[in-house]
Amino acid sequence: MLKLYDLAGAETDRRFSPYCWRTKMALAHKGLEVETIPWRFTDKDVIAVTKQPLVPVLVDGDRWINDSWAIAEYLEATYPDRPSLFGGASGKALSRFHAGWADSVLSVGLVKLVLMDIFEHIDPKDRDYFRTSREKRFGKTLEEVAANRDQDVLAFRDSLLPLRQVLKSQPFFGGEQPLYADYALFGGFQWCRCISDFKLLLEEDSVYGWRQRMLGLFDGLAGKAKGYPV
Amino acid sequence: MLKLYDLAGAETDRRFSPYCWRTKMALAHKGLEVETIPWRFTDKDVIAVTKQPLVPVLVDGDRWINDSWAIAEYLEATYPDRPSLFGGASGKALSRFHAGWADSVLSVGLVKLVLMDIFEHIDPKDRDYFRTSREKRFGKTLEEVAANRDQDVLAFRDSLLPLRQVLKSQPFFGGEQPLYADYALFGGFQWCRCISDFKLLLEEDSVYGWRQRMLGLFDGLAGKAKGYPV
Repeated sequence: MLKLYDLAGAETDRRFSPYCWRTKMALAHKGLEVETIPWRFTDKDVIAVTKQPLVPVLVDGDRWINDSWAIAEYLEATYPDRPSLFGGASGKALSRFHAGWADSVLSVGLVKLVLMDIFEHIDPKDRDYFRTSREKRFGKTLEEVAANRDQDVLAFRDSLLPLRQVLKSQPFFGGEQPLYADYALFGGFQWCRCISDFKLLLEEDSVYGWRQRMLGLFDGLAGKAKGYPV
Repeated sequence: MLKLYDLAGAETDRRFSPYCWRTKMALAHKGLEVETIPWRFTDKDVIAVTKQPLVPVLVDGDRWINDSWAIAEYLEATYPDRPSLFGGASGKALSRFHAGWADSVLSVGLVKLVLMDIFEHIDPKDRDYFRTSREKRFGKTLEEVAANRDQDVLAFRDSLLPLRQVLKSQPFFGGEQPLYADYALFGGFQWCRCISDFKLLLEEDSVYGWRQRMLGLFDGLAGKAKGYPV
């Protein structure tokens, strides 16, 4: 069976990495069963064969694949008879924009809102690594980053306008059914749901409705995962 | 032959509408010849059959189609044997995000930078309409909107990060070749080039390189159009 190294929190069943969620949703889309292996930030050694320090890492027989986009490409190429993640070569090229926007806008907006919540849920052995690396990245303490979130969430909601433009016309970014573009966008929202009770979205927001649909996919794979109500 | 009502400036050959450019690039992609008819904001009567006041409006025999996205859908459905604008049903659904981002982020960032330049290039008979409608939309005078552009352009360039994420991997948003997603994004840049000499992009920016490729497509359709050097 496929194996996936999947970031876990202090509780082994709290699996919150946005990039691991992209991969888990992609695997479910393909109808592929996977054994997830809990992994912590400091467990660099067990994935050393990939010559890099981050999950998700997928193991398929003797092949090790890291990076969520590379894993999606691998699954699409290796399991072509199963439902497509991209809807063809053009769809794959076009999906890079969803992933790129998620990486450069969505994640950046979200992390400020939930940074302290992440810190409080990660394994104690990861905390020094997490605080040091994130405080270096932000140039301030975790507490300072999080201090303004009641205001920051308003700008965050404004930043979702391009998503709402699409959801006026269709229920998923892939159209009538979700595609990898949806999983790339959803990963960030699921990340927050797993480790924070902070209210990101208002119920009347079309993005809220889309997130509900995503939480229900694959028999509630994401919705049933350990986390907080949205 | 197909006819297109195409926004013109004070000079009849200055054609600057970003939405008309989406359509002209889409027609060229399909290899369809078109006669463009210069149109001004106040020429509502000649497109009255569409029951709305905006261009582009495409006339194909006895069919009148307005709205650049609807025109792209029409061209794809009506001329299926010519090169696809979307790369399939999934590609069409996915392209809505590029168009939605262009409408809600790119255009909003650009208009602040070139609003006075538009005003100075439009037909004198359009100026009252333009000033009144835009000052109402912005809640300030045209001059006030434009006043801070040397600072605003820095935030504008930052807002292009999702584009750069994609251009790390491929030359066009559609992949190795452009698709409608590229035209949706390009329309805004071409709009500015047609009516402003303000420097939007630095030459070392991958978005600059992509814009150069777009300007050269279809024997330089966009690059040879009346405008300013970029």
